[in-house]
Amino acid sequence: MSNNILKLGIFGFGCVGQGLHNVLSQTKGINASIEKICIKHPDKERSLPASYFTTDPSDILDNADIDVVVELIDDAEAAYHIVKSALIKGKAVVSANKKLIAEHLEELLFLQSKYQTPLLYEGAVCGSIPIIRNLEEYYDNDLLNSVSGIFNGSTNYILSKMKNEGLDFEVALKEAQEKGFAESDPTLDVGGFDPKYKLCITLLHAFGLLVRPENILNIGIQNLNDQDVNYANQNKQKIKLIAHGQKQGQNISAFVLPTFINPDNPLINVHNEFNGILVESAFANQQFFGGKGAGSDPTGSAVLSDISALTYGYKYEYKKLHQTTVVTYSTQQLLEVYVRYNDKNAVQWTDFESINQSFESEDYNYVIGNIYLEQLLQEEWQLNDNISIVLKAIVEDSPNIVQEKTNNAVVETA
Amino acid sequence: MSNNILKLGIFGFGCVGQGLHNVLSQTKGINASIEKICIKHPDKERSLPASYFTTDPSDILDNADIDVVVELIDDAEAAYHIVKSALIKGKAVVSANKKLIAEHLEELLFLQSKYQTPLLYEGAVCGSIPIIRNLEEYYDNDLLNSVSGIFNGSTNYILSKMKNEGLDFEVALKEAQEKGFAESDPTLDVGGFDPKYKLCITLLHAFGLLVRPENILNIGIQNLNDQDVNYANQNKQKIKLIAHGQKQGQNISAFVLPTFINPDNPLINVHNEFNGILVESAFANQQFFGGKGAGSDPTGSAVLSDISALTYGYKYEYKKLHQTTVVTYSTQQLLEVYVRYNDKNAVQWTDFESINQSFESEDYNYVIGNIYLEQLLQEEWQLNDNISIVLKAIVEDSPNIVQEKTNNAVVETA
Repeated sequence: MSNNILKLGIFGFGCVGQGLHNVLSQTKGINASIEKICIKHPDKERSLPASYFTTDPSDILDNADIDVVVELIDDAEAAYHIVKSALIKGKAVVSANKKLIAEHLEELLFLQSKYQTPLLYEGAVCGSIPIIRNLEEYYDNDLLNSVSGIFNGSTNYILSKMKNEGLDFEVALKEAQEKGFAESDPTLDVGGFDPKYKLCITLLHAFGLLVRPENILNIGIQNLNDQDVNYANQNKQKIKLIAHGQKQGQNISAFVLPTFINPDNPLINVHNEFNGILVESAFANQQFFGGKGAGSDPTGSAVLSDISALTYGYKYEYKKLHQTTVVTYSTQQLLEVYVRYNDKNAVQWTDFESINQSFESEDYNYVIGNIYLEQLLQEEWQLNDNISIVLKAIVEDSPNIVQEKTNNAVVETA
Repeated sequence: MSNNILKLGIFGFGCVGQGLHNVLSQTKGINASIEKICIKHPDKERSLPASYFTTDPSDILDNADIDVVVELIDDAEAAYHIVKSALIKGKAVVSANKKLIAEHLEELLFLQSKYQTPLLYEGAVCGSIPIIRNLEEYYDNDLLNSVSGIFNGSTNYILSKMKNEGLDFEVALKEAQEKGFAESDPTLDVGGFDPKYKLCITLLHAFGLLVRPENILNIGIQNLNDQDVNYANQNKQKIKLIAHGQKQGQNISAFVLPTFINPDNPLINVHNEFNGILVESAFANQQFFGGKGAGSDPTGSAVLSDISALTYGYKYEYKKLHQTTVVTYSTQQLLEVYVRYNDKNAVQWTDFESINQSFESEDYNYVIGNIYLEQLLQEEWQLNDNISIVLKAIVEDSPNIVQEKTNNAVVETA
């Protein structure tokens, strides 16, 4: 291991940046110091001397003394340009911006390779839970069957409140916003986009699969109501918003869906803003990782670990992407889903392979049926406000699983 | 990463060895093949051709073609000699034998360093949970406050049965033995020795601390009865056998004690033969790892990951042992404990700093009091069959914490 003292240039000085400064100045174990901090609002009162701050990105990006760029800003588009510039200039980068990374994965792989400089982003997926590092280093491709979990703290908080306190979705959402767990525009969270970005990144490190976010189904929790929660209660289950990635043969299917969780599944005990991940590997072995998934402290903790890893020369090797075994993204996975509806005509019933159960009453109707992921991805009826969809089971030995397209090469996007 | 095909010599061909062979022959991802298997009983029927087997250790240890020795035998003493010989002969070693490793940690560090060959032992601590790798690679010393958890599956199974089915200790133990979760001589498990060995190994990778097993307090679960379980129930707690390692300043305290677990602690949901680990790091962040801790499958899974890591040239760097920050093992930690007793004279009450509560009745007596870890370690009354001790809390800001002895150097034991 090398003992370089890394010089950091930080973009953004919110809670994470300030926490980072506190820890780095208090501890001796991490050989890194903050050189410069680029901020948007120079007039805001700051806890550090003015000499630390700049509003000009080039004071960091063109500063030859700075080894590492730590990107901690909200705006994914601006962050993308910072990260890209930093990599091109040969600086190591730490980011926790899942949208940026998921949207630009191929290019970021290319840039790391071309400019021989590392990009670490443990904080982008499930905050402080070291899932990327574990998938990258510990779980071999052939030994890994699935990765699934609660990847979004705000929706888990809302679902916990709906379940435990009987709150309506809207009320629970408002509470989550007041507590700072949800954005003021909560679409990314409640619509399941945020966990989808995280799933994209996870699939690369778990299986060596590159897939664009828009090719992955995400159904959120915004249409769930107390009838759905009661249905789960009757079966001693809970509804959680789950990001699923799983392998059958060399086919990987992936999707974000509200899912009924059985009492013996460790994810049932993941409450409120916490995240949890299940990794299933060889010998039918299941490991569970849990921790706080969002917020400045968990993110700061992950960012710190990445900075520390850079002091030892760590980089992602993307071993699985370069393995000889080629995996294929498949949407030909058969799913057993619960569909609650108001208007029977709003659902395209011919999309289903089979209807296994149906229930109708004056104010509550549902069916349980088998449908291919491909169909759900294509159809618009699933977006209807008066329809809620919850996964009951992933059907094993899906008959239609075929080789669709290979996504296992780094495409050069310049 | 290198792409060598590793040639393995295996000692022992029980469930783990056989599972290992199956996985290695079915998957292409791991560049390793089994060359030779050393067994004790040549007459037993085997699932592989006779040419694989030998009863002569030197057929592996002196075989220049073999790169890696995988030690999978029960006998810790025989395993020690195999591991030592293999390291001296420059072979990489994978072992899951916690007793061997904990008892000989200093020597094994020395041998790895002297002969420049790696020894990996992820399977030795909490089976399939990749805790050693995470502590080694992900959690920096200065950022780590504590590591604690359920490190032993058999005792957790027994405690789960006592709690959930009201079984007596002896009955639950018999059931655990019948299910194969406990040894026929269960002392190592129920006496808390097995989790203590795992804790020793954990302390090295978590904090860079070398401490001999005999210097760590272990109180087991053999004296617990239904009164203790009821006391926990009344407080909505559960009793779990917990291995604790924690840092206050540069002082590390460590002990294995039955512990009351609060409902909001993720360890409360770790049932039966499962293991769970809590890691507390900077920003008061808490991560939870769970999975099966014992048995051939989880161990096989960890052993496989170690073999796979060797194909990439991985070795433990013992970074924290070599860090400049010197940590010290301290038994000056004040503990709040629950002590149930039959005979008031059997307890040395002057050992306590304070008695916080006491309860007496015809057939059930207990006190809650504060006592230094040092006292518990020295006194013999805690071994009395009619006394049960359960940790209530680790008292923060322990007044007596002093620098006792440094254990932070590799001692050359040859």
